Amino acid sequence: MAQGETNLEPKEQFEILNNNHLGIRGVDLVDLCDKYGTPLFVIDEARLRENYRTFYDAFSKHYPKTIVCYSIKTNYNLAICKMLRQEGAYVAAASGLDLYVARKAGFPPKRVILDGLYKSEAELMEALKSNVLLINIESFSELEGLNRIAEKIGVTQDIGIRVNVTKTQVFTRKLSEAIFCYPASRFGFSLETAWLAFKRASKLKNLRVTGIMTHPYQGAADILLPYIKRIQNELGIKIQYINFGGGFAKNPTLNNFDLMMDFFRKKLGLRSKLDKRKKESVTRVCLERTSKIIAKAVKQKLGGTSEPTIIFEPGRAIVGSAGLLLLQVNCIKEAGGYKWVVVDGGTNLIPDYWERREIQIVNRETLLPLETVNLVGPLLYTHDFIAIKKRLPKIQEGDILVILDSGAYTLSQSNQFLHPRPAVVLVDLNGRLVKIREKENYEDVLWMDREV
Amino acid sequence: MAQGETNLEPKEQFEILNNNHLGIRGVDLVDLCDKYGTPLFVIDEARLRENYRTFYDAFSKHYPKTIVCYSIKTNYNLAICKMLRQEGAYVAAASGLDLYVARKAGFPPKRVILDGLYKSEAELMEALKSNVLLINIESFSELEGLNRIAEKIGVTQDIGIRVNVTKTQVFTRKLSEAIFCYPASRFGFSLETAWLAFKRASKLKNLRVTGIMTHPYQGAADILLPYIKRIQNELGIKIQYINFGGGFAKNPTLNNFDLMMDFFRKKLGLRSKLDKRKKESVTRVCLERTSKIIAKAVKQKLGGTSEPTIIFEPGRAIVGSAGLLLLQVNCIKEAGGYKWVVVDGGTNLIPDYWERREIQIVNRETLLPLETVNLVGPLLYTHDFIAIKKRLPKIQEGDILVILDSGAYTLSQSNQFLHPRPAVVLVDLNGRLVKIREKENYEDVLWMDREV
Repeated sequence: MAQGETNLEPKEQFEILNNNHLGIRGVDLVDLCDKYGTPLFVIDEARLRENYRTFYDAFSKHYPKTIVCYSIKTNYNLAICKMLRQEGAYVAAASGLDLYVARKAGFPPKRVILDGLYKSEAELMEALKSNVLLINIESFSELEGLNRIAEKIGVTQDIGIRVNVTKTQVFTRKLSEAIFCYPASRFGFSLETAWLAFKRASKLKNLRVTGIMTHPYQGAADILLPYIKRIQNELGIKIQYINFGGGFAKNPTLNNFDLMMDFFRKKLGLRSKLDKRKKESVTRVCLERTSKIIAKAVKQKLGGTSEPTIIFEPGRAIVGSAGLLLLQVNCIKEAGGYKWVVVDGGTNLIPDYWERREIQIVNRETLLPLETVNLVGPLLYTHDFIAIKKRLPKIQEGDILVILDSGAYTLSQSNQFLHPRPAVVLVDLNGRLVKIREKENYEDVLWMDREV
Repeated sequence: MAQGETNLEPKEQFEILNNNHLGIRGVDLVDLCDKYGTPLFVIDEARLRENYRTFYDAFSKHYPKTIVCYSIKTNYNLAICKMLRQEGAYVAAASGLDLYVARKAGFPPKRVILDGLYKSEAELMEALKSNVLLINIESFSELEGLNRIAEKIGVTQDIGIRVNVTKTQVFTRKLSEAIFCYPASRFGFSLETAWLAFKRASKLKNLRVTGIMTHPYQGAADILLPYIKRIQNELGIKIQYINFGGGFAKNPTLNNFDLMMDFFRKKLGLRSKLDKRKKESVTRVCLERTSKIIAKAVKQKLGGTSEPTIIFEPGRAIVGSAGLLLLQVNCIKEAGGYKWVVVDGGTNLIPDYWERREIQIVNRETLLPLETVNLVGPLLYTHDFIAIKKRLPKIQEGDILVILDSGAYTLSQSNQFLHPRPAVVLVDLNGRLVKIREKENYEDVLWMDREV
């Protein structure tokens, strides 16, 4: 951190140390647990900065007018946000809390975008007063409301219109609709209603509609770019910002169908395929491929006009693989035909138990995965899983496990059900340990309670 | 609260006030929001105490040696725990945090039971030192570990063995096994292994095995009582405590299958049945029926020996209907064929979005449910629902909604994703308002973060 702006030449992220412990940047993960206890979140500064640079470089190489907004909600720890600010990141805020974090982490308002289907009047007021770069609008009601408030306080605000162009296959969409209600359809405007929103927005005195936004980015350019051309030609609106949202690095997930297929494979004597799923790659090469396609399309489809700025809002791609969670095995039991490994953190720390993360034993040399276990947390409800039917080396009570890719949507969605929340320790660029969040004690959990 | 031990003659829980607002115990719910803001949790003291008394009376009437342990994890707010202590409740703790809350709320150790598949050494130590009434054991590893610690600090501890007798139909169980892994099988011992656990426990010097525990209670007595007789006869262990756990008042829930059936009903022009599900009744009559059956069975099956104490661990049945959540409608939009009502609290406050709760508009007179809406929260992910396909009176932006049955597994599982957590206000026995938890501000959310 001290040398935040220098060139990075960190050690390998992971290595087996001489004592057979797993190390991160040369730091013994067992020592870390001895010092700070478990559960423990660890953030790897080198990886965090590298993730941002990889992302930014890949896109700016082919399209220099690129802005990368870190999605604060993914992990709003202040130290993490500050490091990304040093790297030159912008931020995507999705609430008043996010705006507050952005300000406290030192982001100037012109590096802040406000997103979200829900925005309270106080949140809009806050964003307007500091005159953030863009506010992305998701409904007519919000459009009118924002203009009213802007008029009241006498400012003019740049806005974007969020359109919903999720390219789901018709069958998948129909199925989702049938068994649920296609819940993603609530976000933004459909292409048809967005047209009316652009038209209306262009008439509002205190708003300047300069942006268009969508999420996720997959397949969006094909639909968005001709649409932008039409908006520019027919409505005379100059689109300066095209925001492609995020969604670059989801962890592989399971679902009930995968588990059912696996159950029958087992019955047939076949090997499990549950651990075969690969994490979506976010290497420079793969980001550059996306970048090239988008840059080419923008130049082709919107050529002749001055080039718009392209915005991305990655969260997981930046902070996911920079975070680890260290857990200790409390007890192991066999029941119902399974081996259950009970650890000291569960869905209180990693809420999405369908996600499939890599897991390693850190306190001793391990052989290849040997047995299938259910890794469960300390929360007493049935869906408190860290991993379902996971093949792992033989685990013993007292072992320390590391759960990789635990930097995104973990601490920020953690709760205080039954257990206070853990500390977060940064392994900085020099391999030094810096506590960037205190471990909570019991009193911390209760300190807002008032006696009667 | 001031007259905690007096007889209660509270006003009706809900009534329509003269201004057409909805009132609780005569307090205008709109005034409450004006004073404390939304979201807001409200606890109804009269209902809380009444729920405990109803439960205790129903069971002790037919079986005087009954202990009712409030399950702290359901809602660990200190004021709530204290009121239940005044009522004479015992508590079921499931972690060190719960033990701490119990102590702070004034429960003597002899009114505390420690449960849970996961118990750290520190938690066991804490329970042993204060010599709680019972520690329920879930694995051999825990049994040996507890004895070791008890020996080290020189105490003898009463324990129970948790057995898993969930009477699931074979088909349901096989199906659950196929598509998941029958996750409830991890809890406690099967009847066969429990036998070995009892045998082993009876030989350990620093433990006194005096209890047997199971959860949930449904159908458990039929299996448990003959088993206890065998334990007493063949192993010579005197069972003084039979613990039937909880599970008395689950809210009705939906699942994907229900939604799919509803989708096809709609296609066929039939009316939705989603709101037809009734909440499981926890009236005195229905509790007494269960009580009678259990009391009769215990006397019959274990007659001749001195009567054991029967323990229950209700959580939801006590605090669920004593809690309300007040939310304000931020915006309303139509998209994807649905009407979306966006409110200022979602799965950050009520995590289980499959649960079906009653919802009312509180700020004006409403007619019968007229339209089907999706009620969604402010969290930006697709599964942030308060209610899916719910028929409600016509809602307007700015309306205040009350979500009933919001006292259990809400605040205790709430998180700080995007928004600080709300205040909790008690409506006391005299209709006075007492803040029993402060509203968090942005700084409160970040106060454990450390600068680098």
